[in-house]
Amino acid sequence: MPGILPAVVEVEGGDFVLVALVTAISLGSLAMAALFRQQVLAAPEGTENMRRIAQAVQEGANAYLGRQFRTLAIFAAIAFFALMALPADDATVRIFRSVFFLVGAGFSGAIGYLGMSLAVRANLRVAAAAENEGRDPAMNIGFRTGAFVGMATVGLGLLGASIVVLWFQDDAPKVLEGFGFGAALLAMFMRVGGGIFTKAADVGADLVGKVEQGIPEDDPRNAATIADNVGDNVGDCAGMAADLFESYAVTLVAALILGSQAFGDKGLVFPLIVPAIGALSAIGGVFLTKPRAGESGLKTINRAFYLSAAVGAVASTIAAFIYLPSKWSELGSGVSAELSPPVFASGAVVIGIVLAAAILALTGYFTGTEHKPVKDVAATSLTGHATVILSGLSVGLESAVYTALVIGAAVFGAALLAGGSGGLALFAVALAGCGLLTTVGVIVAMDTFGPVSDNAQGIAEMSGDVSEAGAQILTELDAVGNTTKAITKGIAIATAVLAASALFASYTQSAFEEGGAFIADEFLVYDAKLIVGALLGASVVFLFSGLAINAVGRAAGAVVYEVRRQFREIPGIMEGTGRPEYGKVVDIVTRDSLRELATPGILAILAPIAVGFGLGVGPLAGFLVGAIASGTLMAVFLANAGGAWDNAKKLVEDGHHGGKGSEAHAATVTGDTVGDPFKDTAGPAINPLLKVMNLVSLLIVGAIVNLSYGEDENDVVRILIALAAATGIAVAVYISKQRESQLGDDVDTPAAVETV
Amino acid sequence: MPGILPAVVEVEGGDFVLVALVTAISLGSLAMAALFRQQVLAAPEGTENMRRIAQAVQEGANAYLGRQFRTLAIFAAIAFFALMALPADDATVRIFRSVFFLVGAGFSGAIGYLGMSLAVRANLRVAAAAENEGRDPAMNIGFRTGAFVGMATVGLGLLGASIVVLWFQDDAPKVLEGFGFGAALLAMFMRVGGGIFTKAADVGADLVGKVEQGIPEDDPRNAATIADNVGDNVGDCAGMAADLFESYAVTLVAALILGSQAFGDKGLVFPLIVPAIGALSAIGGVFLTKPRAGESGLKTINRAFYLSAAVGAVASTIAAFIYLPSKWSELGSGVSAELSPPVFASGAVVIGIVLAAAILALTGYFTGTEHKPVKDVAATSLTGHATVILSGLSVGLESAVYTALVIGAAVFGAALLAGGSGGLALFAVALAGCGLLTTVGVIVAMDTFGPVSDNAQGIAEMSGDVSEAGAQILTELDAVGNTTKAITKGIAIATAVLAASALFASYTQSAFEEGGAFIADEFLVYDAKLIVGALLGASVVFLFSGLAINAVGRAAGAVVYEVRRQFREIPGIMEGTGRPEYGKVVDIVTRDSLRELATPGILAILAPIAVGFGLGVGPLAGFLVGAIASGTLMAVFLANAGGAWDNAKKLVEDGHHGGKGSEAHAATVTGDTVGDPFKDTAGPAINPLLKVMNLVSLLIVGAIVNLSYGEDENDVVRILIALAAATGIAVAVYISKQRESQLGDDVDTPAAVETV
Repeated sequence: MPGILPAVVEVEGGDFVLVALVTAISLGSLAMAALFRQQVLAAPEGTENMRRIAQAVQEGANAYLGRQFRTLAIFAAIAFFALMALPADDATVRIFRSVFFLVGAGFSGAIGYLGMSLAVRANLRVAAAAENEGRDPAMNIGFRTGAFVGMATVGLGLLGASIVVLWFQDDAPKVLEGFGFGAALLAMFMRVGGGIFTKAADVGADLVGKVEQGIPEDDPRNAATIADNVGDNVGDCAGMAADLFESYAVTLVAALILGSQAFGDKGLVFPLIVPAIGALSAIGGVFLTKPRAGESGLKTINRAFYLSAAVGAVASTIAAFIYLPSKWSELGSGVSAELSPPVFASGAVVIGIVLAAAILALTGYFTGTEHKPVKDVAATSLTGHATVILSGLSVGLESAVYTALVIGAAVFGAALLAGGSGGLALFAVALAGCGLLTTVGVIVAMDTFGPVSDNAQGIAEMSGDVSEAGAQILTELDAVGNTTKAITKGIAIATAVLAASALFASYTQSAFEEGGAFIADEFLVYDAKLIVGALLGASVVFLFSGLAINAVGRAAGAVVYEVRRQFREIPGIMEGTGRPEYGKVVDIVTRDSLRELATPGILAILAPIAVGFGLGVGPLAGFLVGAIASGTLMAVFLANAGGAWDNAKKLVEDGHHGGKGSEAHAATVTGDTVGDPFKDTAGPAINPLLKVMNLVSLLIVGAIVNLSYGEDENDVVRILIALAAATGIAVAVYISKQRESQLGDDVDTPAAVETV
Repeated sequence: MPGILPAVVEVEGGDFVLVALVTAISLGSLAMAALFRQQVLAAPEGTENMRRIAQAVQEGANAYLGRQFRTLAIFAAIAFFALMALPADDATVRIFRSVFFLVGAGFSGAIGYLGMSLAVRANLRVAAAAENEGRDPAMNIGFRTGAFVGMATVGLGLLGASIVVLWFQDDAPKVLEGFGFGAALLAMFMRVGGGIFTKAADVGADLVGKVEQGIPEDDPRNAATIADNVGDNVGDCAGMAADLFESYAVTLVAALILGSQAFGDKGLVFPLIVPAIGALSAIGGVFLTKPRAGESGLKTINRAFYLSAAVGAVASTIAAFIYLPSKWSELGSGVSAELSPPVFASGAVVIGIVLAAAILALTGYFTGTEHKPVKDVAATSLTGHATVILSGLSVGLESAVYTALVIGAAVFGAALLAGGSGGLALFAVALAGCGLLTTVGVIVAMDTFGPVSDNAQGIAEMSGDVSEAGAQILTELDAVGNTTKAITKGIAIATAVLAASALFASYTQSAFEEGGAFIADEFLVYDAKLIVGALLGASVVFLFSGLAINAVGRAAGAVVYEVRRQFREIPGIMEGTGRPEYGKVVDIVTRDSLRELATPGILAILAPIAVGFGLGVGPLAGFLVGAIASGTLMAVFLANAGGAWDNAKKLVEDGHHGGKGSEAHAATVTGDTVGDPFKDTAGPAINPLLKVMNLVSLLIVGAIVNLSYGEDENDVVRILIALAAATGIAVAVYISKQRESQLGDDVDTPAAVETV
């Protein structure tokens, strides 16, 4: 790798026109998004009751996101100035890296907000359509809502990246680090905060409603139902949209950084062409998503995915052969491989697209109700709660392995295309990431479909205005939504691993640029300090997961106490004559989620700083590898165990093993409750975690090398920075532990016991 | 590291006498073991009823171990010949590496067998002493049983290593690879097989007995009780003894391999002196373990530990200053550091001893009933099964992080002593491992105390011949045993990480010896293939854990069906007039455990072969780092989550949160049942897994380098070997999946449902 040093690259002439065309496509995507939004809003709004409930959900979601953005503004401001203080090649990079940090964060937040704000308007329209017009129109509204978010994600991601390339040319990769970091940081906070919100409300509602009082989900007598529906929107919708936008942006950033070094000028253009093709094929995919008669909703959505993936693969290959020269020497970057540039590039892109399809199939197998794993988990409900937990954990652990094998095969395949050249191999990985991105438009659409249909069912149930037939349709759509949500998580993890690996390559590259080739000795994997780094990287993943799960438990506990209090103190709730104070629960969950998101967020930002400045540039590399390896497995494990439990419960509710109300059902409810924070809080938050840690490392590597070996060598300053970061983590963890104590005490009081 | 190449080392003159003295100490330790054994057997045997029950447990345990050894003989024979086929420096190494492989395996098996065979004789003597003589004599018998196993472990470990050093001199490190591999391989199988046995019987007995029929633990009406007690002996006793022997042997092996390169002749002697001192201080510790009036049993045992640790630290430091020269140049190995050799060596040893003490404290905090984590888990039982699971998982995840931080600090501290020299840093890690070893005598004694007191309680309960007061004493001893078991697991994991890191260093060292310095490029951590390796290493840990948990679930299911069948078909069991067929359950668990241990075992052996030959020597290094990093976290997570659940249940049974029979109790029983395979099957089996994978890598590295770059370069053969190994894993996993299907079908039959 020391051989590859960045050439001066310029995007001009035909290339300039091409990138401008990408900008135009990004604007076109945004226009399409606006069109889809209009289509959704044009649908009728349903009954008075529905509107009232939807209104409550809207207000709750708006209030939460508003407060969340105000909280995050503090973090963003600190990060803005911290970025300014970091070393940079020149003033342009220094200033605009910070400015585009804000742009990235703003886009990420905007996607989340826009997605949420349409989802809370679409939910009642889907419910109304299911009642009055039938399944296909209802599904259409849900999928168009998703398409809006998908096209907005793709549009804003491409817009940001292409403008930076046009504007900053040679400096674009450095400025993009800021853009990517902003997107990732905000997405991580939205993922964690929204994830805690949605699951605290869900688990809290289930514990009191289903388990203690024996009333169904979304029953209006449960004070936590509105909070539960708000959660779907701020977690599954806003959080996931921000997360996928971030995946999109960061993958592009990584590809552009490595691209300019491997492909020269063209390396700043080709990684933009591929997702631009993806944007076009996604638009096609959305228009093709028309349910055929008698076909399941999932089949329709899968068809859209496979079609747009196939179109993306073919078109990217054609683009590679037209745009890239057939000889490496013509690229002028000094890098080469055995395969010609078009074969190399299109091969990598196709690997990414095939990876997306493979993960779709694998996740479907491990979390779908029609396959063996979920059936087995459901069967273990006959021997009680413990066996359901154990079998779900097993499914999660094993499915993580197969997913990791597939991702590993993709990375290895990409490396093989490069024929052994270190830097080129990781550019191939980044290009595979771009391949994955071509499917993001449809993936986001699939994902947003989930919370919208979930909410539609909730509103129908609470309003009491939907007939048997309409409810049946909504249940079917909700089940489809569950599967699409699980699949999206799998794809999101794959993009995270590819993007993180590529960013990791940029990190070592930057270390070489700063420190010279001799620094290679720091990166030998058998160095004891590097092994310690790897251990710490794995530790952060485990701690982050533990903190997130714990946070949900704490916040859910608060919901349980509030709902119990309302049942106790407000007369007539169970009889339907008293009205629960829904807003109170929303307030509690909002407050707790915002408080809880700080600790995992601080951990993600400060851990690489502590390791990098404290132990050095090599151990930080070990740290990143340890985090990527165990993070990949942990993320899939958590997501799929949760998905399997969720659908095992659905199987039992569909009448297997004794059906609703049986002992077996109670056991699967336990599984589902354990799985909730797994699959919707901790698991998906690991994606942005990996990228935030890699981006922080990438941003600080210059400073570390400089303080360790450079002109400003100063061990005292270096150690002080590390200690400050470590202290920050310790304080944050300590504070969150203190909160735990209070709840522990609360739980233990006799008053609490009496209410059980 | 390429700079350190092995010098010709000879152990002669004073050194020869010293090593001979170590041999004598090892024989002395074995003599002490025999003495302790006699003391235990001299105690009175208790009532007719007790003898009859103990007899049944003995027979069951003997039958299981006998069948297990016959099964493992096949694996051992294959490994024996496979080792012969691997490259070696000369015929001596080739032959004696294989011969000492058998010796290592034999010692490992012998320790397990001897420990088990005394434990099944001690259990009823402890019960009788508790009834007739009071707490202190009962505790004394239990602890002497442990001391027998401890001294036998230390004696056989030192005996094997010192004889190899005396006999083979320069070739000793290579021959020791065989010795260590034999010990680790057998220990892994005994850990997995015994772990599956003990938890299948335990979980099966609990599911039918406690959960379905509402009868207490160890109730003679439960057909699985004898199997449960057999399990304590073959899993917790034989399995753990073999595991700790293996830790002992492998750590010594790693230290001796690295020692000869760092310290020359003296490097083959000093790593033997340290554990020999440990043997002597352990004997002192055992004799000092006399309970003081009114003191809890745990305090007595802790005192023995801290005393022997302090004596070990002081004596090792004195030995280092007497034995080692004060200048590096006098060592003649060409290696040096800033600190003088005695400071370096004694510093590393003390780090290891401090690490042991720190882990003792940490594990006690996270799994002890008197501290916050377990109290919090117990409190969550008020909100049901799911919250108990979530809080226990959180405790496990977070405690894993702190333990990893402590281990990481120890590795880093050891590396700092070496002042940056790669090879020397890892020798320091190995010496820290030797420091840990000084405490193994007492640790094994503490651990064996657990199953013996657990069994004593079982026999007392089943015989009905023990009064209230006697039962109270046994309950106290059992609780002490639970904590000592948890602590041992923590220490075992720490030794595993240190030994695995040191072995990993030997692996890269061997690669350099075979391939020359240019091979360093293969080990750069940012190589995409190496990242894939790390991903695969983490995958193996997850898959292994999933397989082990799954195996327990399957085998427990078989127990559940058999016990239910007996309740149904044998009249009068519940009334106490019919006698259950205990032997039938033992047979079923024996058969299933032996069938189930193959798949994880095959995975551990073949995975490094597939990765190494398939992807190369660098990716195999990444694989090992990925496995060590995620394996450390996973092992502690599983052990401590399980320990916390176990003791949370005890807290509730002691009357908190509603006490026995409450809803809260049922929730903690679920936690405990989930925790059983965590803490006693999957978690502890990860220790030998890490070492087996490192040793396999160390043994094959010569062949990989040779086929990849050497004289016999041959990619076809290399890929074929990898494919064969990968196919072997796939077939083994497939076969175990098929078994799962059958159980799944069985569970689903209406007949099975009726019996619930």
